Amino acid sequence: MKITALHLHPIAVADPPLRSSYGLHAPYAIRTIVEIETDEGIRGVSETYGGERPLAALRAAEPKLIGRDVFQLTRLWMEFEAQAAEAGGDRSQTWMVPGENPIDQHARTFAAIEFASLDAIGKALNKPVCDLLGGRARDEVAFSAYLFYKHAGGGGLGGDEREDEYGEGLTPEAMVRQAKDFIARYGFREIKLKGGVLDPEVEIETIRALRREFGPAVPLRIDPNCAWSVDTSVKVGEALVEELSNGGYLEDPCATIEGMGEVRRRLLAKGIDTPQASNVAVTAFPHIPMAWKHDAVQIVLSDPHYWGGMRAQQQLDHFCHVFGMGVSMHSNNHLGVSLMAMTHAAAACPHLTYACDTHYPWQTARDEVVAGGRIPFVNGCVRIPSKPGLGVELDYDQLARLKERYEALPYRKRDDEAEMRKRVDPNWKRILPRW
Amino acid sequence: MKITALHLHPIAVADPPLRSSYGLHAPYAIRTIVEIETDEGIRGVSETYGGERPLAALRAAEPKLIGRDVFQLTRLWMEFEAQAAEAGGDRSQTWMVPGENPIDQHARTFAAIEFASLDAIGKALNKPVCDLLGGRARDEVAFSAYLFYKHAGGGGLGGDEREDEYGEGLTPEAMVRQAKDFIARYGFREIKLKGGVLDPEVEIETIRALRREFGPAVPLRIDPNCAWSVDTSVKVGEALVEELSNGGYLEDPCATIEGMGEVRRRLLAKGIDTPQASNVAVTAFPHIPMAWKHDAVQIVLSDPHYWGGMRAQQQLDHFCHVFGMGVSMHSNNHLGVSLMAMTHAAAACPHLTYACDTHYPWQTARDEVVAGGRIPFVNGCVRIPSKPGLGVELDYDQLARLKERYEALPYRKRDDEAEMRKRVDPNWKRILPRW
Repeated sequence: MKITALHLHPIAVADPPLRSSYGLHAPYAIRTIVEIETDEGIRGVSETYGGERPLAALRAAEPKLIGRDVFQLTRLWMEFEAQAAEAGGDRSQTWMVPGENPIDQHARTFAAIEFASLDAIGKALNKPVCDLLGGRARDEVAFSAYLFYKHAGGGGLGGDEREDEYGEGLTPEAMVRQAKDFIARYGFREIKLKGGVLDPEVEIETIRALRREFGPAVPLRIDPNCAWSVDTSVKVGEALVEELSNGGYLEDPCATIEGMGEVRRRLLAKGIDTPQASNVAVTAFPHIPMAWKHDAVQIVLSDPHYWGGMRAQQQLDHFCHVFGMGVSMHSNNHLGVSLMAMTHAAAACPHLTYACDTHYPWQTARDEVVAGGRIPFVNGCVRIPSKPGLGVELDYDQLARLKERYEALPYRKRDDEAEMRKRVDPNWKRILPRW
Repeated sequence: MKITALHLHPIAVADPPLRSSYGLHAPYAIRTIVEIETDEGIRGVSETYGGERPLAALRAAEPKLIGRDVFQLTRLWMEFEAQAAEAGGDRSQTWMVPGENPIDQHARTFAAIEFASLDAIGKALNKPVCDLLGGRARDEVAFSAYLFYKHAGGGGLGGDEREDEYGEGLTPEAMVRQAKDFIARYGFREIKLKGGVLDPEVEIETIRALRREFGPAVPLRIDPNCAWSVDTSVKVGEALVEELSNGGYLEDPCATIEGMGEVRRRLLAKGIDTPQASNVAVTAFPHIPMAWKHDAVQIVLSDPHYWGGMRAQQQLDHFCHVFGMGVSMHSNNHLGVSLMAMTHAAAACPHLTYACDTHYPWQTARDEVVAGGRIPFVNGCVRIPSKPGLGVELDYDQLARLKERYEALPYRKRDDEAEMRKRVDPNWKRILPRW
């Protein structure tokens, strides 16, 4: 089954004004929907990062794709890997968002092609994608309630503004409301709070309020995206020793593997064994031995979109197991195609036991490109459907609408810092550590 | 496609009196041919270690297999892994041959099922196995001339004795002849000498004679299977600094990761950077971080038969790459089914760049179970055939003959030490280090 054409659809998806240490989410998140056509008339679909650079990298790969057998991608990976090795670089994501990080551009491009190829193979064989990878470890994948401090507003611009389903969320009380809303709608059983936004005391109080509300059966996690110094990280770790126990973790409290290693040592010296997770200090395989050496990271938050695809995700799963690390999955704003790719990839990973992140609740049916509408969550889980491939088809009317929107947008890359200056504070700068 | 039956065929294959630090090869090597039947009428085949224990482990797995989808083996692996974790153990293969090592019994059993399942899937989809694993990295796989010191005799017993194609080989000159024979017949372009048999001075002289004969374009490797002390290992490393350069390596010179780490440090201190390979100190994934920590092993010699299958082999390939290690493949006595499984597995591993080991030249057409006879080598390589699955079918007459032989054999496990006592020296004991 050979690839005969590559179709790239850049799209814009209304996104609420969510906050993180990077700044503020813009009114539209940008994504790319990828379609491959094959000589058997079957199409494969995937979704990946949006904007100029990811799109350009995919376009540049097109000549390598035409005529290629969807079953035979290893040589494509070897070509990409050789180019990446030549380009060099060993940057973490401290300062880069994943879609813009040059170190994983080849892995991102490859993943988008791999997802679409596996989707096409699954459709040809009438098999779900996870069962093309050795088989599922589970029939459903748990996701967590991914809470964000946010300003009022549902996202979108002009006539295309979206209803604000959740309202402003800048206090502990508001975040408890947000969590209750999420859980009522999706049934999530684990909670992650995106931190690094308000004073650490307020964020500590938010986690405590969540614990009071939901009790120890609901694991809690906090991710300030490196906003804290080593000292502050240790202080927060001490303050939340009880709240982050029972399956909780502290995610990227400060920058770098060395920094996280120091936090770990200082917490352990105080008898505090809260695991640390990362998708910032550890973003590629060569980071893992370093993280292990420094005992900096106990849970790797992978992302098949930028670790190099679903087979790479499986390799990471096994890697982490061998090193005695846990594994889970990071997310960026995404639609249903990515959600299903994440679900299939996670289902094929025996050791992925922490609920995965997902931004999916921050998007709505109005912006879904999947035919038939939004992917359902049951008890916080997405089930592997008994449909071939990823289990989704595109709604081309929706796709056209979101493409039109993208064309009209003035920006071509995610820049949360610029957005923060534009809408909240004209002097705002990302400062690390801020506290 | 569900498994409906498991057929296990224990067989005996005539094997010449080859020597190693373990002792002497018996007149017959024992293997197991595994067949699965599926509800689509397609059979999948594999080959694995022979004798009572491997057979019993496969038999014990049968209830887990019946009714299982050949596309969905991950949960089977999870069950095996959980059992293995319960059983514990972290033994190297210093004293155990792979087929008898309890630490990898579950991985061996799983691999045999995985190979056969992939063969069945390939036959159903009309795809070579390597292209079910993401695709081949290469169309042919290089093997090396695997030289053994040997006594006269072709293997077999009584009326079933085999012609001795190679004669006695217990001197440097005889080993050069053996190498020339091998290269003339198979076109090998890399050479491995099984050492640990004669005085290190004679083995050094053998390697030097090979170098004089074939020049620096043919990489040379020596594997004494831990027969040497750290001191002797360092001395041999020094003596062969030139001969083991250009793609050569020193394999398991002494026992344990710590021992090999010491050899490495002492050689590096003398400016000698000969890489060390292992399939004895490093036999399972958890050994790799340890080997890396000690800088003990620069090339891992995997074996999909006991590392847990072809996907595990791919994971190992990637592991080694991330750790800056090379990767190649170990072999035991085997027939064409295993040869093709090794070839497909190696073809799907981008970083496997050293020629693989194979004992295949030590067997003959008279004992091949593959329909149509022996697998051809061209320039030392086996090509991925344009046939589905592993690319082989069984010759059931041959299988019946080799099964009959197995039934008549007095032994049910490989015991090179006992064989050595029986035929060469009644007082022989395996002593490590011997020199």
